[in-house]
Amino acid sequence: NSKLKIFSLNSNIPLAEEIAKEVGVELGKCSVKHFSDGEIQINIEESIRGCDVFIVQSTSAPVNENLMELLIMVDAVKRASARTVNVVLPYYGYARQDRKARAREPITAKLVANLLETAGATRAIVLDLHAPQIQGFFDILMDHLIGVPLLSDHFKAKGFKSEDVVIVSPDHGGVTRARKMADRLKAPIAIIDKRRPRPNVAEVMNIVGSVDGKVAILIDDIIDTAGTITIGADALVKAGAKEVYACCTHPVLSGPAIERIDNSVIKELVITNSIQLPDEKKSPKIKQLSVATLLADAIVRIYENKSVSTLFD
Amino acid sequence: NSKLKIFSLNSNIPLAEEIAKEVGVELGKCSVKHFSDGEIQINIEESIRGCDVFIVQSTSAPVNENLMELLIMVDAVKRASARTVNVVLPYYGYARQDRKARAREPITAKLVANLLETAGATRAIVLDLHAPQIQGFFDILMDHLIGVPLLSDHFKAKGFKSEDVVIVSPDHGGVTRARKMADRLKAPIAIIDKRRPRPNVAEVMNIVGSVDGKVAILIDDIIDTAGTITIGADALVKAGAKEVYACCTHPVLSGPAIERIDNSVIKELVITNSIQLPDEKKSPKIKQLSVATLLADAIVRIYENKSVSTLFD
Ligand SMILES: Nc1ncnc2c1ncn2[C@@H]1O[C@H](COP(=O)(O)O)[C@@H](O)[C@H]1O
Ligand SMILES: Nc1ncnc2c1ncn2[C@@H]1O[C@H](COP(=O)(O)O)[C@@H](O)[C@H]1O
Repeated sequence: NSKLKIFSLNSNIPLAEEIAKEVGVELGKCSVKHFSDGEIQINIEESIRGCDVFIVQSTSAPVNENLMELLIMVDAVKRASARTVNVVLPYYGYARQDRKARAREPITAKLVANLLETAGATRAIVLDLHAPQIQGFFDILMDHLIGVPLLSDHFKAKGFKSEDVVIVSPDHGGVTRARKMADRLKAPIAIIDKRRPRPNVAEVMNIVGSVDGKVAILIDDIIDTAGTITIGADALVKAGAKEVYACCTHPVLSGPAIERIDNSVIKELVITNSIQLPDEKKSPKIKQLSVATLLADAIVRIYENKSVSTLFD
Repeated sequence: NSKLKIFSLNSNIPLAEEIAKEVGVELGKCSVKHFSDGEIQINIEESIRGCDVFIVQSTSAPVNENLMELLIMVDAVKRASARTVNVVLPYYGYARQDRKARAREPITAKLVANLLETAGATRAIVLDLHAPQIQGFFDILMDHLIGVPLLSDHFKAKGFKSEDVVIVSPDHGGVTRARKMADRLKAPIAIIDKRRPRPNVAEVMNIVGSVDGKVAILIDDIIDTAGTITIGADALVKAGAKEVYACCTHPVLSGPAIERIDNSVIKELVITNSIQLPDEKKSPKIKQLSVATLLADAIVRIYENKSVSTLFD
């Protein structure tokens, strides 16, 4: 039987360590450094011949550095005669560039899928893609895990009464996700419906669904600059929400995000560790949950050739 | 007839501007920016449907940023219905990782060739690859230009007598290059022959060939930290060289390079602008020549479907 090996690159070592611990193996030995001119230098320091290798790397910021680390590592693992090369991407960067929104734009989410395949990945394990269609960008095997159960369980544990809660999607694109969470909490949904009545006229924010007197829980896949979520939270309070919570799988939290969240009406922001949070982005309002068990389960099931589909819902 | 378009990315805009001027076109309009989270955002701002597009980008430091810019641009150009997508790489980064020097290393120079192809490049134009074998890493069309004529002409203009000059290769790998330059200057060659007599014993530097009383010109493809070249220059002086010049195509010049050169016995270091030199790397000893004419010639010949082979020697 072939051996299971897990390697961590540099984007999220604490998560990779947690995953390895859950799986019950030591992280594989490899050195990932830079030459004097900034080129990435990788050397795998143990034999992986015939092994099933899992490489844990989020393509979060610095995204280009982290992506190139992953591609070069995949090349090295492939050339070291691994049996399978599985890339575990807790956060899949460039996912928002998944279509031509304007003429002559790239579709970088597809490019990244192609690059991983070209480098030699034989399977990808990802968590909450910005759009589920990105699954189809891969010709290799791909498992798409979701964070909704983990986030839902956190709110379940607060013991709110179902009839007091409403799950809110901050935009039209996220309604399916909100619906999934609402099912788990047996709560109704609402949608923040932004639209611009005429060009160059301020957006109007309308709330579809009833939030009056309720605990509103905003859910999104990515929170980046936190503009959408904090403005949405204001609108919910204005519409009578008693309290506003927010949650997401991927805490990109770039630019003014932390300041906006700290100054917002949001009571608590629940995120996962798909992206490692640097110290300067920690805030008393932010509660981070771990996806290590979810990813470790997926890795073990794939290794044992068992279905991972139960981890999808 | 299809139109010729030249686009510049961010690594070496002055060179791209010079090339466009030589060719007699304006640089194509495109915006290459970053989103708040650091992801690259590219939009091509003019129609390139049916055009022959040339993208000028050196994958010098920051190499991963510059390489991803290039890959995403290639994707955008391809999807905008260009007729051909030609990548012009005055400096091809990761070229030194062209073989497994140790077990379980990647071969990143090959990976980069594959990535460019996967993104959609139909042809590559490169200058002085670290090893000419890298040409074979590409399955797409590829033109390999060389900088020796340009560097040689600079020294020719100094009016040294042929019998007073010796062209020196700083290591075994560079002898062919030194030979090419020596032919142009009708001078003999010498080789700095480093070897370690036993493990853990200091290297011995031996000079093969006569340098006594001569003007020695060291030639290399890349000068990176400048260790090899400055130590070599010392050895040449010790062996009786009257003066030492050095030259290279690609001024990587990382880490202590400038300090080492400034403090060395090297009288003048001649480089090209294949890599843009930031102000802090300028030094009175460094003379920079332009490869714009060479690259512009190649672009026009490729566009006009003429042979570029005369530019190889
Ligand atoms: N890293 C990014 N940060 C902000 N916006 C992005 C990013 N990547 C892509 N986009 C844009 O976001 C839009 C897609 O977002 P969405 O409508 O939420 O799917 C597209 O118009 C993209 O141009
Ligand atoms: N960016 C770099 N800086 C320094 N050394 C490198 C770099 N990339 C690769 N190498 C190493 O340089 C050696 C190849 O150099 P060479 O013998 O001159 O062809 C290989 O052993 C590589 O591991």
